Amino acid sequence: MKKNILVIPGDGIGQEVTIWGKKVLEKIGQKYGHEFSFDEAIMGHVAIEATGNPLPDETLEKAKSSDAILFGAIGHAKYDNDPSAKVRPEQGLLKIRKELGLYANLRPILLFDELLDASSLKPEVLKGTDILFFRELTGDVYFGEKNRSEDNNFASDLMNYNRYEVERIARKAYEAARTRSKKLCSVDKANVLETSRLWREVVQEIATEYPDVETEHMFIDNAAMQLVKNPKKFDVVLTANLFGDILTDEASQIAGSMGMLASASIGDGTGFFEPIHGSAHDIAGQNKANPLASILSVALMLDISFGLQDEAKEVTGAVAATLKAGWRTGDIANLNTPADKILGTQEMGAKVLEFIK
Amino acid sequence: MKKNILVIPGDGIGQEVTIWGKKVLEKIGQKYGHEFSFDEAIMGHVAIEATGNPLPDETLEKAKSSDAILFGAIGHAKYDNDPSAKVRPEQGLLKIRKELGLYANLRPILLFDELLDASSLKPEVLKGTDILFFRELTGDVYFGEKNRSEDNNFASDLMNYNRYEVERIARKAYEAARTRSKKLCSVDKANVLETSRLWREVVQEIATEYPDVETEHMFIDNAAMQLVKNPKKFDVVLTANLFGDILTDEASQIAGSMGMLASASIGDGTGFFEPIHGSAHDIAGQNKANPLASILSVALMLDISFGLQDEAKEVTGAVAATLKAGWRTGDIANLNTPADKILGTQEMGAKVLEFIK
Ligand SMILES: CC(C)[C@H](C(=O)O)[C@@H](O)C(=O)O
Ligand SMILES: CC(C)[C@H](C(=O)O)[C@@H](O)C(=O)O
Repeated sequence: MKKNILVIPGDGIGQEVTIWGKKVLEKIGQKYGHEFSFDEAIMGHVAIEATGNPLPDETLEKAKSSDAILFGAIGHAKYDNDPSAKVRPEQGLLKIRKELGLYANLRPILLFDELLDASSLKPEVLKGTDILFFRELTGDVYFGEKNRSEDNNFASDLMNYNRYEVERIARKAYEAARTRSKKLCSVDKANVLETSRLWREVVQEIATEYPDVETEHMFIDNAAMQLVKNPKKFDVVLTANLFGDILTDEASQIAGSMGMLASASIGDGTGFFEPIHGSAHDIAGQNKANPLASILSVALMLDISFGLQDEAKEVTGAVAATLKAGWRTGDIANLNTPADKILGTQEMGAKVLEFIK
Repeated sequence: MKKNILVIPGDGIGQEVTIWGKKVLEKIGQKYGHEFSFDEAIMGHVAIEATGNPLPDETLEKAKSSDAILFGAIGHAKYDNDPSAKVRPEQGLLKIRKELGLYANLRPILLFDELLDASSLKPEVLKGTDILFFRELTGDVYFGEKNRSEDNNFASDLMNYNRYEVERIARKAYEAARTRSKKLCSVDKANVLETSRLWREVVQEIATEYPDVETEHMFIDNAAMQLVKNPKKFDVVLTANLFGDILTDEASQIAGSMGMLASASIGDGTGFFEPIHGSAHDIAGQNKANPLASILSVALMLDISFGLQDEAKEVTGAVAATLKAGWRTGDIANLNTPADKILGTQEMGAKVLEFIK
């Protein structure tokens, strides 16, 4: 198989971790005889510094013509502390999601048994948890009209959904539920929001097309609570952009660390694969970041964009083997981890490569 | 002291638990020589059934002329499953919040040592946690304009804030932070939302009035994660209506159960006190609900609305003593709780009364 992959390292630790996602792709390519070629592009803070634009046209063009995109992270504290900045790194990410039509963000909460202890949740609460989030990614209050009054005394963002936007992601989530344990939980705030009431109506309709899947509707506040109380009760979770942003970060604690979670954004064209962690400038450039989320994002790319299931399993297996052998980055180590088992980004990445024979 | 308290039991388990909040007030009144008089009113589903209106005028008038309000819970599954219902129980609660100007919702996450084991979080993660949420309660996407297109293909809710709305709740939160460990964390989504950027700007300004308080700004997704990972790092948390709704429900797992959390809504006039749990129709009328959140809401009323700190401490102390003696309702029991220590709503309420000598 011949594939052309665009690597966008982005900001902060995105730079360090993406290297390892790419190396894994190269090794898988060699082993299975695929021709993976790579190009690179800039986005986010680094792109603002270089061009003034968080998503340069060149990056967008390369993205559109590639077969899949491996992305790192976005953001910089400079903008976080300056709410009045007009140009911001995140605009690059939001724009590429919109331009590529990446309306479905899949975030699997993959729990490696070896990391049961790394979580703040009790092992008996966690054990057996396996959740797949479908977060809507190109609508909601993220993309609605924004306003700021002249006198700076008022600001607004329009939360909104069109029926077709809910339908298409709902169908994707139901299709996935069919291949899993046939349970889908749709999360909204229909007791308060009109947007959520439309969301719930549409999901109720689509549910009739999938009578074999059991549907539950849950309010976001309750879902945020249940996810901590009893994560095992969830299988496929379908939710809007903002609620999905919140719930999936919260759920990262199930997997022990943000540093473990990968995501796939898919839709109309090229697929986009990225860790759910951020740019983490506090540890950037220190060889401390966990490369596993980037590597697991590559597994999702192989599976979802290229249909290469065996290759995807090999990557996930190599990560599992690395953990089983006791290797940890700082974020997933605990008090019982021997000091010589705690590795930096590069050493951890290299270990995973070793397990791809 | 002479006080006139309006009791609004509301829906579902609101009916059962509020009785015990009231009984505690009566007993405290007797013991300390206060004249507490009570009136009752309807709101929510029960009010719709009786009058067609989730907040009858009579209830609102009684509320405005009372010295404090003890509320139970609101909601009914009938409406949850019917997104197109025009009249809904929750409208009653939202309207009374707005009409009484209850812009600040205080939700203390009070962790009783006896309940360390009732949580899904590890005891060592929890121990020492003490968080006070300030949730804005009369603005945000809750009260912005709602729209639904004629053809039902589009829905929207306007998320919005005025500067003064952020200022007044921020000041309340900073004042509280001064009396505690002088740390305040403001939660928003300023990397995406204009509303959040205004929020952050205003909080940055107000922060300059409180140089003795250390301010941190955090994105909501990160906050939802940190709350599970390391709840101890939070002290006063200041946030908008929607984010506060989500975070406080999530935080209920720190206290072991939703059934333990009380809240105070304050602002321009009469204070409003309620458990943060919902109507829980699945267990309503079965003598299973935990009355402690209602009783702890009474402690907040005594403290905040009446300035009766000793009386408030007596109530909290009675709850602590009840737990220390081993008594539990089902929601806060665990596998090690002896069966004869698990009580129903009435028996649990009666135990607390016994501890007010
Ligand atoms: C960086 C930010 C704009 C982004 C989001 O909110 O979508 C991130 O938190 C994510 O979840 O991918
Ligand atoms: C019942 C509902 C409208 C309410 C809210 O969302 O504010 C509840 O969840 C709460 O937190 O008090």
